[in-house]
Amino acid sequence: MAVAPAIRTAEIIAVGSELLARQRIDTNSLFLAERLQELGIELRRKHVVGDHPAELRDTIADAIARVDLVITTGGLGPTDDDLTREAVAAVLGRRLAVDPEVLAIVAARFERRGVPMPSVNRRQAEVIEGARWLPNPNGTAPGQVVDTGDRLIVLLPGPPREMQPMFLASVVPVLAARASGRQVRRRTVRTTGFSESQVEEIAQPIYSRFAAGVVPIDTTVLASPGLVELHLSGAAEDVDALEGVLDRASAELVAALGDAVFTTDERSLEEVVGAELAARQLMIAAAESCTGGLLLQRLTDIPGSSAWVLGGVVAYANAVKVEALGVGEDTLAAHGAVSEAVARAMAEGVRRRLGADVGVGITGVAGPGGGSDEKPVGTVWIAVAAGDTHARRFLFPGDRQMIRQFAASAALNMVRRAIGAKVPAPDR
Amino acid sequence: MAVAPAIRTAEIIAVGSELLARQRIDTNSLFLAERLQELGIELRRKHVVGDHPAELRDTIADAIARVDLVITTGGLGPTDDDLTREAVAAVLGRRLAVDPEVLAIVAARFERRGVPMPSVNRRQAEVIEGARWLPNPNGTAPGQVVDTGDRLIVLLPGPPREMQPMFLASVVPVLAARASGRQVRRRTVRTTGFSESQVEEIAQPIYSRFAAGVVPIDTTVLASPGLVELHLSGAAEDVDALEGVLDRASAELVAALGDAVFTTDERSLEEVVGAELAARQLMIAAAESCTGGLLLQRLTDIPGSSAWVLGGVVAYANAVKVEALGVGEDTLAAHGAVSEAVARAMAEGVRRRLGADVGVGITGVAGPGGGSDEKPVGTVWIAVAAGDTHARRFLFPGDRQMIRQFAASAALNMVRRAIGAKVPAPDR
Repeated sequence: MAVAPAIRTAEIIAVGSELLARQRIDTNSLFLAERLQELGIELRRKHVVGDHPAELRDTIADAIARVDLVITTGGLGPTDDDLTREAVAAVLGRRLAVDPEVLAIVAARFERRGVPMPSVNRRQAEVIEGARWLPNPNGTAPGQVVDTGDRLIVLLPGPPREMQPMFLASVVPVLAARASGRQVRRRTVRTTGFSESQVEEIAQPIYSRFAAGVVPIDTTVLASPGLVELHLSGAAEDVDALEGVLDRASAELVAALGDAVFTTDERSLEEVVGAELAARQLMIAAAESCTGGLLLQRLTDIPGSSAWVLGGVVAYANAVKVEALGVGEDTLAAHGAVSEAVARAMAEGVRRRLGADVGVGITGVAGPGGGSDEKPVGTVWIAVAAGDTHARRFLFPGDRQMIRQFAASAALNMVRRAIGAKVPAPDR
Repeated sequence: MAVAPAIRTAEIIAVGSELLARQRIDTNSLFLAERLQELGIELRRKHVVGDHPAELRDTIADAIARVDLVITTGGLGPTDDDLTREAVAAVLGRRLAVDPEVLAIVAARFERRGVPMPSVNRRQAEVIEGARWLPNPNGTAPGQVVDTGDRLIVLLPGPPREMQPMFLASVVPVLAARASGRQVRRRTVRTTGFSESQVEEIAQPIYSRFAAGVVPIDTTVLASPGLVELHLSGAAEDVDALEGVLDRASAELVAALGDAVFTTDERSLEEVVGAELAARQLMIAAAESCTGGLLLQRLTDIPGSSAWVLGGVVAYANAVKVEALGVGEDTLAAHGAVSEAVARAMAEGVRRRLGADVGVGITGVAGPGGGSDEKPVGTVWIAVAAGDTHARRFLFPGDRQMIRQFAASAALNMVRRAIGAKVPAPDR
């Protein structure tokens, strides 16, 4: 029996005039790019094309001439603008015919909703001659796979919540059986508290060495306010050897970056801090000025966070710092609102008043106005009260939103470090 | 003198293997799609192609054969992977040569930074025969425009902060002079408090009529939690007529949608509420339970918000509702935390304790746990105290993040409506 040739290369075609308009982006290809990489299939090109029959046929025909696998997303709806079925059939010179089984499924879907099937929806039951149709549990349009012997053409619906489950359930098994044998594996190392260049300085000598190894490891560095992450990946037929090298590379990076690493399992900083608070049965409260509730919002974004978050005070006005947190008016007058003394008083005040184990105080200049030579925009004082009180001054770069995100992340990191040590009971 | 032919159609090619990897997306094409639409140039296709010489040459050659304008982004760096200059030159059969003026600019850039120019950077001074080079104030690589008579090929750098200013300063004037004369104009109508289908029911008869007019207006509806917006646009050579039709369409929609419309000038809901509070010299405070600080964070995201935000209390735990807001323990016991009585007590408590003009109370079940038959996930009570106290029960759809966003938006909308009337002084 002949063995089907291996699938090594791919192109993706996103179909729909709306994807050429402003403010719309093809996100399906991100999902597909990642899955193809895992399968060891090289994505050569991505295209976006509008609902024009000739444009669409040309794009499909050109791609089929170049690569082993062509995936289309979109254009499977019931209207005259949905042209993908017709275009693929025309390019392959195959007929398109209503499949009675698919028609029954489409009709049943309308019946369940208690509405008669519009006649246009018959189009969605049209299957390309020789194609296998793919069930769509989350929508009307089935997908299709055409195997020409040396090429696979896969037609998927456009909505991500229909496309993704269909791809995973019906397409991945086909591709896995036909992929070349190289598999991709990954590791992620997330750090906080270091800048991108500080992380690079420590990490680069390590990952450069692994990049030059027998099983080469590719490393990319991604930075956002308060987070620098290293993505390690490699592709090999010998998966055990690959996993071993990735484990060694990851372990060396973790050892070199030390305390800056907060996770190797893709959790967010707030998830890690929440889990550490929960493990120690500690309750946290925060007093926020310049971050205006952002730290509490991030902490309470985690489901189940009521097990470790009591709440807090957004003390945007100085009067609120005095009344709700007990910050001394003399302290505010002597040091100004953005000062170590006020940050400490806020952290200790919210801890005491709310009866928390850990109190956080954040006060700073988020800008764009309000900066001075002594306290420029980006200056933030953060204090964490957990028995002892620690305070630190930061100068964050960027705009208002970035400074606020940096400050919330820095506060989470200070909490993470503070609760590493034993936390005594608060004075309630 | 021959008049250069009009530019009517375009394709965009994003160059770089990194854009084919997971988690990376070509955002340059969004910016360019919008600018091309404004210029009345039809974007026919978008492509992403890796750093492979043959792939890149093919993609460029095919596009040049199809459309009047081909724009590339990326691949203008100094390394061997930066192939766009070579590929365009090869496709056009033109030479590539170092331009002494560009070389001097590139060298000067290094000199200013006090580092010697690496010899590889000479590549960035290579200009295609007959091309005009475009200055890059924000980076090393200049852009290039090749005019073949009936085609324009524009080479732009990949980083958005280099590409965007270069496009606006050096390419838009060229295209404006060569565009077909049709210009695009837009209007935006933003609503809150209505679902997408409620907005559609009211708006669809109006915009359908304008879609069928002599100067047809295209309408798209975009929905996110708490926000449904209508984008109107049209393209015409007679800009005055177009502006007039857009004004009429926008005014009819605003009249029909009534109080749900909060802006026609693209401001956010929190900006509108902030401006209305500031205009009335009112200070706001919020008591948040299920939103966990999100409302205060959104209010304080606006620069200058200290003029209308006092702050508030994130009362995640019931003890904080009692201690910091004065919610009665009997009220909590009798009605539960998610109840009209508690929302009212939170709004009134935070208004009184912080001395605010307007107090907001939010309490609900954001999920995924904590729902019951009587109070399912998505149930949220919101109260606004501004002299009188108004309270309302909502049942929001979606996941935890969506429910929280819906609740914060609904609270902002209730504040917007409450302060439309006269607000008496609070009991301080």
